[in-house]
Amino acid sequence: MSHRKIAVVITARPSYSRVKTVLQAIKDHPNLELQLIVAASALLERYGSAVHYIENDGFTIAAKVFNVLEGENLTAAAKTTGIGILELSTVFENLKPDIVVTVADRFETMATAIAASYMNIPLAHIQGGEVTGNIDEKVRHAITKLADYHFVASEDAKTRVLKLGEEVDSVFNTGCPSIDIAKAIDTSGKLQFNPYSRYGGVGAEPDLSNGYVVVMQHPVTTEYKDSRRHVEETLTVVSQLTLPVLWFWPNVDAGADGTSSGIRSYREKNELNHVHFFKNMKGDDFLNLLNHASCLIGNSSVGIRECAYLGVPVVNIGTRQNRRERGENVIDVPYSKDAIYNAIQSQIKVNKTPKSLVYGDGNAGKKIAEYLEQVPLKFHKTIVY
Amino acid sequence: MSHRKIAVVITARPSYSRVKTVLQAIKDHPNLELQLIVAASALLERYGSAVHYIENDGFTIAAKVFNVLEGENLTAAAKTTGIGILELSTVFENLKPDIVVTVADRFETMATAIAASYMNIPLAHIQGGEVTGNIDEKVRHAITKLADYHFVASEDAKTRVLKLGEEVDSVFNTGCPSIDIAKAIDTSGKLQFNPYSRYGGVGAEPDLSNGYVVVMQHPVTTEYKDSRRHVEETLTVVSQLTLPVLWFWPNVDAGADGTSSGIRSYREKNELNHVHFFKNMKGDDFLNLLNHASCLIGNSSVGIRECAYLGVPVVNIGTRQNRRERGENVIDVPYSKDAIYNAIQSQIKVNKTPKSLVYGDGNAGKKIAEYLEQVPLKFHKTIVY
Amino acid sequence: MSHRKIAVVITARPSYSRVKTVLQAIKDHPNLELQLIVAASALLERYGSAVHYIENDGFTIAAKVFNVLEGENLTAAAKTTGIGILELSTVFENLKPDIVVTVADRFETMATAIAASYMNIPLAHIQGGEVTGNIDEKVRHAITKLADYHFVASEDAKTRVLKLGEEVDSVFNTGCPSIDIAKAIDTSGKLQFNPYSRYGGVGAEPDLSNGYVVVMQHPVTTEYKDSRRHVEETLTVVSQLTLPVLWFWPNVDAGADGTSSGIRSYREKNELNHVHFFKNMKGDDFLNLLNHASCLIGNSSVGIRECAYLGVPVVNIGTRQNRRERGENVIDVPYSKDAIYNAIQSQIKVNKTPKSLVYGDGNAGKKIAEYLEQVPLKFHKTIVY
Amino acid sequence: MSHRKIAVVITARPSYSRVKTVLQAIKDHPNLELQLIVAASALLERYGSAVHYIENDGFTIAAKVFNVLEGENLTAAAKTTGIGILELSTVFENLKPDIVVTVADRFETMATAIAASYMNIPLAHIQGGEVTGNIDEKVRHAITKLADYHFVASEDAKTRVLKLGEEVDSVFNTGCPSIDIAKAIDTSGKLQFNPYSRYGGVGAEPDLSNGYVVVMQHPVTTEYKDSRRHVEETLTVVSQLTLPVLWFWPNVDAGADGTSSGIRSYREKNELNHVHFFKNMKGDDFLNLLNHASCLIGNSSVGIRECAYLGVPVVNIGTRQNRRERGENVIDVPYSKDAIYNAIQSQIKVNKTPKSLVYGDGNAGKKIAEYLEQVPLKFHKTIVY
Repeated sequence: MSHRKIAVVITARPSYSRVKTVLQAIKDHPNLELQLIVAASALLERYGSAVHYIENDGFTIAAKVFNVLEGENLTAAAKTTGIGILELSTVFENLKPDIVVTVADRFETMATAIAASYMNIPLAHIQGGEVTGNIDEKVRHAITKLADYHFVASEDAKTRVLKLGEEVDSVFNTGCPSIDIAKAIDTSGKLQFNPYSRYGGVGAEPDLSNGYVVVMQHPVTTEYKDSRRHVEETLTVVSQLTLPVLWFWPNVDAGADGTSSGIRSYREKNELNHVHFFKNMKGDDFLNLLNHASCLIGNSSVGIRECAYLGVPVVNIGTRQNRRERGENVIDVPYSKDAIYNAIQSQIKVNKTPKSLVYGDGNAGKKIAEYLEQVPLKFHKTIVY
Repeated sequence: MSHRKIAVVITARPSYSRVKTVLQAIKDHPNLELQLIVAASALLERYGSAVHYIENDGFTIAAKVFNVLEGENLTAAAKTTGIGILELSTVFENLKPDIVVTVADRFETMATAIAASYMNIPLAHIQGGEVTGNIDEKVRHAITKLADYHFVASEDAKTRVLKLGEEVDSVFNTGCPSIDIAKAIDTSGKLQFNPYSRYGGVGAEPDLSNGYVVVMQHPVTTEYKDSRRHVEETLTVVSQLTLPVLWFWPNVDAGADGTSSGIRSYREKNELNHVHFFKNMKGDDFLNLLNHASCLIGNSSVGIRECAYLGVPVVNIGTRQNRRERGENVIDVPYSKDAIYNAIQSQIKVNKTPKSLVYGDGNAGKKIAEYLEQVPLKFHKTIVY
Repeated sequence: MSHRKIAVVITARPSYSRVKTVLQAIKDHPNLELQLIVAASALLERYGSAVHYIENDGFTIAAKVFNVLEGENLTAAAKTTGIGILELSTVFENLKPDIVVTVADRFETMATAIAASYMNIPLAHIQGGEVTGNIDEKVRHAITKLADYHFVASEDAKTRVLKLGEEVDSVFNTGCPSIDIAKAIDTSGKLQFNPYSRYGGVGAEPDLSNGYVVVMQHPVTTEYKDSRRHVEETLTVVSQLTLPVLWFWPNVDAGADGTSSGIRSYREKNELNHVHFFKNMKGDDFLNLLNHASCLIGNSSVGIRECAYLGVPVVNIGTRQNRRERGENVIDVPYSKDAIYNAIQSQIKVNKTPKSLVYGDGNAGKKIAEYLEQVPLKFHKTIVY
Repeated sequence: MSHRKIAVVITARPSYSRVKTVLQAIKDHPNLELQLIVAASALLERYGSAVHYIENDGFTIAAKVFNVLEGENLTAAAKTTGIGILELSTVFENLKPDIVVTVADRFETMATAIAASYMNIPLAHIQGGEVTGNIDEKVRHAITKLADYHFVASEDAKTRVLKLGEEVDSVFNTGCPSIDIAKAIDTSGKLQFNPYSRYGGVGAEPDLSNGYVVVMQHPVTTEYKDSRRHVEETLTVVSQLTLPVLWFWPNVDAGADGTSSGIRSYREKNELNHVHFFKNMKGDDFLNLLNHASCLIGNSSVGIRECAYLGVPVVNIGTRQNRRERGENVIDVPYSKDAIYNAIQSQIKVNKTPKSLVYGDGNAGKKIAEYLEQVPLKFHKTIVY
């Protein structure tokens, strides 16, 4: 089996966390060479740069590509993708990978998919086949139609990729690599670190020893004009809670400024003596934090995936995670302060929900690396029907 | 019914010809305003600029976008697409269309699709759902997953788009607008114009009154390193024909230079006293020319579509039109001079094949304009399964 | 005299304010047509979008171009310029101006200069020939070498442009158009509006009736790693003042985040009960505010220009305005809290300094419009020595 | 003395030839590391790719950047430059050079200059300070204003750079590196190789043993609409010569297609039994060819520089070399067939003109490498007056 160069493009800090075990398994594999490319918001301090996490974890970055265009509208998302294609083409031209890997469904991952597929480089897609009902879904399924290999996270996703006309021997249910990290964390005992001293952030520093909730709410691309109103419902509820609240800043998206400015403005006008705001956190620390939380509130996919495996109760707000498979740990609510409030009251009474393997058994990284070594190199396909 | 602005992006001269009746029907519709955007190779003399055809036909160009990156490799195709997104976003930002229309499946049409869908502008796609087995297919189906309305050319295409998970009320079999043009041409009598004096070109000017064949062979993206060898098979056969040959230069693509340089080099070394080369021809003149041809040779989609309607015999070479629906007028052959030669000998004995409506009845333009006025404006969808 | 189309590209809110009277004079001129293009940070809310000011002032925007690449390093400034060239070329291709006007010396103004000069469109430059000793100077003099007409703000600037080898009949000392605005404001009596209610912003709202100081400190490109430290010196001094302080947020630049984050962090840790922060202000309101201020502190060019004409005392910090001509109203100090403190104490004792015409008599806008109508159209030049 | 990384950006094959001795001297220097970046037309076969020459000469390419935008108008030149900035910024971000070197004055060299200077990387410019009176001059002097070190080719150029306000210790008259190659060629005896068999090309293959002339005519950017007419004057004269003619295809420029299509069209219509066309030739072979030519005809700078050193008679046509310093070997003529004809008749009677050192003594490469090691690293400057 000859040596293969595998280029993985990371465009956001959460994507890095999600596929870290894949990167590690590629790096550790004797027949694979990892070419790690970091781009888009993964490079920006404003959204929590992934660079120092990546370097601390012992990875070497082969190329950095700054391509986030600034703007308060959706035009910026399109242009960021255009610049990404332009520049990733040059990076691929110079690095000459055997396979390119793109992760999930953020708008700018399309840049990776187009550059690779147009250059006849075999393209692997991690986490296709899921359903959410937002712009990410257009992106996700379009990438499926460009990709040559599909590493999906669940049986439901596999079925959907096959329905989309992909060849059966190109679709692999490896589980989601984010579960690999959840599997590895220490789930015994209490929270082992002080999040304030380790991660800074702003706001109050309430005592966490009697429980706390975590909030993570991203803007939804198709609703970006309402981002501010949506986050204000959550803010209103959160301000009334008695439990400490650890709030994580949203990552970049069209409309990020709606959510961000909503939070910033609310803070200027209201005292939030029990709320602390973080920009980001190392993946395993974040999972440890979640593991000991009374409840996760918001619309992050971590509530659907890792929290299912860990058994953490979740209040999932709005449309962002629509139609993703769920474990029993999730209560879904609309953008309504009353519904959010009631669901939180219900969830914080639960202790833990049962472990679910719907998103994998925690060995996704190794499985993906194995397939990357073994799949036939191809960039030519045709729809099966 | 309120007034709607419809932006149509034309990126190649053949695409213009194909959708001319759509443009006309939009322009003529009292409730629609046409915003015609011309980009990519449609602007370049080297590939037969569409601009003066467009202006002669009475259309006003709202914006021109030069975005073809030069290069002999596939990197250029990717980068052309990236630049296209970057610039079309600005054009859409300034023109503010209600619906954007993208045509067919050339690589750079993806730029239109991404810019519109990322900006939450409803996106219509003409000619999705077909199968060819080359890189165009990745592009075509990916655009289907980004588009909100699908104007397909045949029942087979409609079925395929629905299988891809699109909502049934977003898919419309209007037939192919190229058939509208075929319907309109004068099919009686003899060829009414002198192609040499009207279109120039280079090479011999053989007498056409006793029949002739037409050749149109494009490079195939997934085989671009072989473009030169492939076209040389055809050139060898063509050099041996006794009938006059009218050869049309290929349009831009990665590998265009392989095909083009193959032709150029062959011409330097061989006398071709019965062959004339054209860069391009107005759509209806071209159809008239085909209508009176003994045979069309090559891999153009015109052989599959318009020639089916017109009943012109076709020798279809190689993989470019694989799995597209066909009428009885087509003989398929591999890139082999013997197979090409034999098929030509067989086809030039046929007079006309029966008219086929597989790609529509010649009213596609009007049907599409009607739908563009009536469809609900939406940019949000979810896969149906 | 035939009709001329004059494209003016505005890339930042302060540039808009500076040339507003030029835009008005072009718009009012019977033989000129204004094509106003708004780009870069002038479009971004984060830096105080100029768009609603422009529209309120009755101008129509011919095209908007989002081209600010996000990033904390200088790479972003270069890339913003590259995107600007790419897109402005298309805008010029479609608008077909007779003359393009670029303003001053911000890094991204180079995009306007290159697009126009490479396309053989006559290029006019407002505010060349000045000296500052930072990266802006490289940009400013390079633009002089690309420009065909030079509308300079002072005799000193005219001399320098001529020394750079420009033809004598292409250099016009019109004065600076920013002085036109200063001339027009009402300088009698007291401050006529409440800046808090009209412009919002954050922080304390101290009573301004017994005097106040204004602060405006931008990052310096060549020192961007020190931006945070530099602004902290000023913050320390400001925190000790007894007079109310009105602080204006910096505009975008590489390192903006250094200055901005310095301010944000200082605010988190310190009480500033006499300081209010504004994002931006309409030009004439800002000049009225300055006109009644005890002192302007920072490194804004407004201290050198408009304040000279208005006779407002200025404490000019650091290198950003090095070697610009000054009136008697300026005290220059290094980035040192003691020096800044002492200079402020000295300046707030002064009432008004004498009016200086070094940057013009307040008719620059009209003069520039006249020249734009009369200069021969040319894009070809050669160095005079 | 610490180790320095020197990035040299090559954007055209002729630029490579011109600075090859600089590249070699950097590569050979114990304290310097060469980072060779190849971009623009230097990568394109259509203009004679420099890549295989570079690799044959033993250099390693650190990055390739395809950035030539296709188009028949000047818009393409502007956009090529914009893309160049966007991508070279990323290349510099990843390679982290200590000094960037840009060569001469082709439009796209501005991309190198802007990317480096905006990123605060010290910028060296080879061949500034010359005068030509075309668009190149705007570019050349603008780059001088962006550059930190100037390696000029003559005393006249040095004087001009100093007049432009550059500091005296940043300007070095090293001579032109193209003379280094001229110095190294074997000037004894007869032409040592068969250009037809070594370089292919198209057209007749006349016997060269009794003398020949060489033609090299580039389009002039400011006159690009006239390119075709201009080259036709030369073609008319050339068709009447009795001596064999070796014609070199023009390099890329806006208007290249005017010149190229003029030549192509002329060849279609006229028999040229004594003319052979080459795309390009290795630098030293080309100089050998020139050295034995009776005369060089056209507007190439090689006629002004290397031919001065070699003593080859030159007929210099049109404005492209206006005001460059000349040796005694040049006769200047307008775009007029009679003037061109008469000058050729006069020059082919001359044998050799005396060797001139106006462009250096043939040691420029080594001198430049020495300076690159020794100059203080700086990116901050101010105009001297």
